[in-house]
Amino acid sequence: MQICLKIHLLPAAKLSNNYGNFDKFFNNMKFKTPIPVSEISRMIEAEMLGNTQQMATGINEIHKVTPGDIAFVDVVKYFKKTINSAATIIILNEKTECPPGKTLLLVDEPFTAYNYLVRQFMPFEAMVNSVSHLADIHPDAIIEPGAIIGQHVSIGVGTIIQANAVICSHSIVGKNCIIQPGAVIGSDAFYFKKNKQIYHKWNSCGRVIIEDDVYIGANCTINRGVSGDTIIGAGSKIDCLVHIGHGVVIGKNCLIAAQTGISGKTTLEDNVVLYGQVGIAQNINIGAGAVISAKSGISKDLDGGKTYFGVPASEMSEKLRELAAVRQLPELLKKMK
Amino acid sequence: MQICLKIHLLPAAKLSNNYGNFDKFFNNMKFKTPIPVSEISRMIEAEMLGNTQQMATGINEIHKVTPGDIAFVDVVKYFKKTINSAATIIILNEKTECPPGKTLLLVDEPFTAYNYLVRQFMPFEAMVNSVSHLADIHPDAIIEPGAIIGQHVSIGVGTIIQANAVICSHSIVGKNCIIQPGAVIGSDAFYFKKNKQIYHKWNSCGRVIIEDDVYIGANCTINRGVSGDTIIGAGSKIDCLVHIGHGVVIGKNCLIAAQTGISGKTTLEDNVVLYGQVGIAQNINIGAGAVISAKSGISKDLDGGKTYFGVPASEMSEKLRELAAVRQLPELLKKMK
Amino acid sequence: MQICLKIHLLPAAKLSNNYGNFDKFFNNMKFKTPIPVSEISRMIEAEMLGNTQQMATGINEIHKVTPGDIAFVDVVKYFKKTINSAATIIILNEKTECPPGKTLLLVDEPFTAYNYLVRQFMPFEAMVNSVSHLADIHPDAIIEPGAIIGQHVSIGVGTIIQANAVICSHSIVGKNCIIQPGAVIGSDAFYFKKNKQIYHKWNSCGRVIIEDDVYIGANCTINRGVSGDTIIGAGSKIDCLVHIGHGVVIGKNCLIAAQTGISGKTTLEDNVVLYGQVGIAQNINIGAGAVISAKSGISKDLDGGKTYFGVPASEMSEKLRELAAVRQLPELLKKMK
Repeated sequence: MQICLKIHLLPAAKLSNNYGNFDKFFNNMKFKTPIPVSEISRMIEAEMLGNTQQMATGINEIHKVTPGDIAFVDVVKYFKKTINSAATIIILNEKTECPPGKTLLLVDEPFTAYNYLVRQFMPFEAMVNSVSHLADIHPDAIIEPGAIIGQHVSIGVGTIIQANAVICSHSIVGKNCIIQPGAVIGSDAFYFKKNKQIYHKWNSCGRVIIEDDVYIGANCTINRGVSGDTIIGAGSKIDCLVHIGHGVVIGKNCLIAAQTGISGKTTLEDNVVLYGQVGIAQNINIGAGAVISAKSGISKDLDGGKTYFGVPASEMSEKLRELAAVRQLPELLKKMK
Repeated sequence: MQICLKIHLLPAAKLSNNYGNFDKFFNNMKFKTPIPVSEISRMIEAEMLGNTQQMATGINEIHKVTPGDIAFVDVVKYFKKTINSAATIIILNEKTECPPGKTLLLVDEPFTAYNYLVRQFMPFEAMVNSVSHLADIHPDAIIEPGAIIGQHVSIGVGTIIQANAVICSHSIVGKNCIIQPGAVIGSDAFYFKKNKQIYHKWNSCGRVIIEDDVYIGANCTINRGVSGDTIIGAGSKIDCLVHIGHGVVIGKNCLIAAQTGISGKTTLEDNVVLYGQVGIAQNINIGAGAVISAKSGISKDLDGGKTYFGVPASEMSEKLRELAAVRQLPELLKKMK
Repeated sequence: MQICLKIHLLPAAKLSNNYGNFDKFFNNMKFKTPIPVSEISRMIEAEMLGNTQQMATGINEIHKVTPGDIAFVDVVKYFKKTINSAATIIILNEKTECPPGKTLLLVDEPFTAYNYLVRQFMPFEAMVNSVSHLADIHPDAIIEPGAIIGQHVSIGVGTIIQANAVICSHSIVGKNCIIQPGAVIGSDAFYFKKNKQIYHKWNSCGRVIIEDDVYIGANCTINRGVSGDTIIGAGSKIDCLVHIGHGVVIGKNCLIAAQTGISGKTTLEDNVVLYGQVGIAQNINIGAGAVISAKSGISKDLDGGKTYFGVPASEMSEKLRELAAVRQLPELLKKMK
């Protein structure tokens, strides 16, 4: 497979004219117009197995695919799981049996082919103006000097984008939001595929969606999703230097203090309170109304309505008992000797 | 009470012509000219009880009020405390007995009325130019490209504001300071009033004051005070990505390493050293010359002249004894079984 | 010694014409042309002892000097060590015996003299344009709006400098790198000399060198070295809000998650993985392939190929045993009573 050559034959701009960009929905990347699987196969110079006549309707990561989607797999032990997922079209690197109704696309490097397809349908667009004329900014929004607004950004009425903040392409900011100076909304997902010690960047095609009445502190960073969206729920308030990873979903009226970090694809339900310098691992669910004390580290799901503390965190009362016990420990050891 | 209507009747610009803006002093917001309490009452459509003839001289949070000030209270159990505070004029939401010499202003939503008054006397001014012509910048200061200087900012001789730093309105930066690239000075206080699960933003009217010979690292964030000022004492040096909350007061010649965070209204006395990734809770006092080791979490006042470590922190020697004991614990438990 | 006067007599611009700037190599600052020691002595108004005829070839911190270099010492107990180091010319503040082949330069304030010499040969240049015409930017690099590129910066083919990032003077960025929005590359070393409670800034003359295929997340801060260089090895990927201190050397294909901080002069060998909110002390060596779990604090060298956790960190299995034991401790204490 000669991906490099292909890029010259089928530039992104031309493809966009044929098929348009993605229509993005939360957790899903759909083509504006379905594309014949034979055309997809031709684009990545694949060998087609199974149903060669159907239409591809979108492209996604394996854990987010829906029928009509293209997915990829390059590790033999995951072949079965991927082929039997909701995905209709699977890019893979070894001949294998194709179940009825599916299409297999055989290439040398499935990840490269997947990444190539994503970029064809959602090309990287470098920012070229401080405020893009392709952004949809409500006339009653305020854009302060030095703020950069990317292509296809939408900014609602009454929102203030303060000095030197950066709103990257495709981000959506609702009504009456405040984005403090230097905050970066829509930086790339930190998501790499490791192959022989080398990290290969997974193209980010998700967006950041900031709902109404949200406050984002100075110099925060909110990464866009890989394929899904990063969402900050209505009424949530976030202090300075907070990091929100790719595909994180934050509920309504959450409060997040300074220097806290939330890893990729974690969910905060409504009314969660995170104190300062908290860290939350990826793929975690924090129940509604949970309160997490400062400097805690969370590595598993937490029930709502309770208060937690520690690294790793326990319920506050339990952790305080442990801390009290540890304070008595040196004396205890002395006595025992 | 129809606050929205009032906003149309008495726009901020008009009021400013009558009464001028605040004169700001540390921890105190005073009107340039005293205002008849009847005029204040009319502005927020209040019912007046008690002395209707006196003059309001300022407005402040309950823990900072001085005689002549307006304060507010909306929780019945704090009525007595607020009415008997130094404040002369109290905005509240239930009829109650008025002590001699005081004025009560009865409205439906005291916090909204308070916030409205604050904005009337210190209107929000969006930044409109990269370097405001309303800023007072010494001709021998250096402003690098991309730096944003807000209205009413003052910058002293020999100070360097580096690329893409943001100095928000009303901030004061002394002589011979270095503000590294991307630092944000004077972002809003992260201070909200919660009412039925919704967070309402408390208008920030304090400033950031940076004294002489201060060094602020790249991408730091220093929030302005709610009503008081955030102060960084002369000669203090702060590394990158540090967060300083609203109304924090840092003494002279303090040293603060990278990624440390200090919550609102905490005080560091002179010559304090904070290592990296330390977190300090709000309303804490750290004594002169205290040293806090990396990654510590501080939730109560600390005596000066000592070294601390841990989350929560103890004196270093005590914490090291605990850590040594914990390392022996697995073996001890094994033996006991 | 009247350093201030000297500055007027021998302005940096004039000196540059005579001797040129430093040639920078990793860990070493060498003059483009050797300079007679008598000329150095005259510049800092020193009294010369020992060999007065030799040439100075560079200037450096004591732990980095090589033959021909100038170093300084101002604490008597370090006189012997410094005079017997590889340095050929030593600036000091007390008459002492000079070994054969060396030159001693006697002044009142050795640190001030050293800092003065450094600035003479590598003058501070404020940034004056958004993109300096003294920067060497490959035509196929992409510079997004709001990005600031300092003097003498080099940027390789295929590299993207995103919106509002700052690349400070003398930084070198390789090929196919991505610098996300708001990142600051080459901020000053956080390095001060304390004298009678006052912190004096050590002039930073090192650079940041970013090798090929490196990814730097949004709002990261990477400080330049004091005299050596800060180096980010080829293929390494760094998430948002990470801080890298002065003179840190990061190996190839390292992965560093968000909000982690690495203190000055620490080394990461190849293929190290740091999870989020990790902190590493200064002058530490982390062995190849080491993995450090989230929120860990590292204060001593770590062997490669192992996984670590905790503050201070131990090997993961050992730390998990401790944590399990601590959870049993409250029950144990209860039984013992």
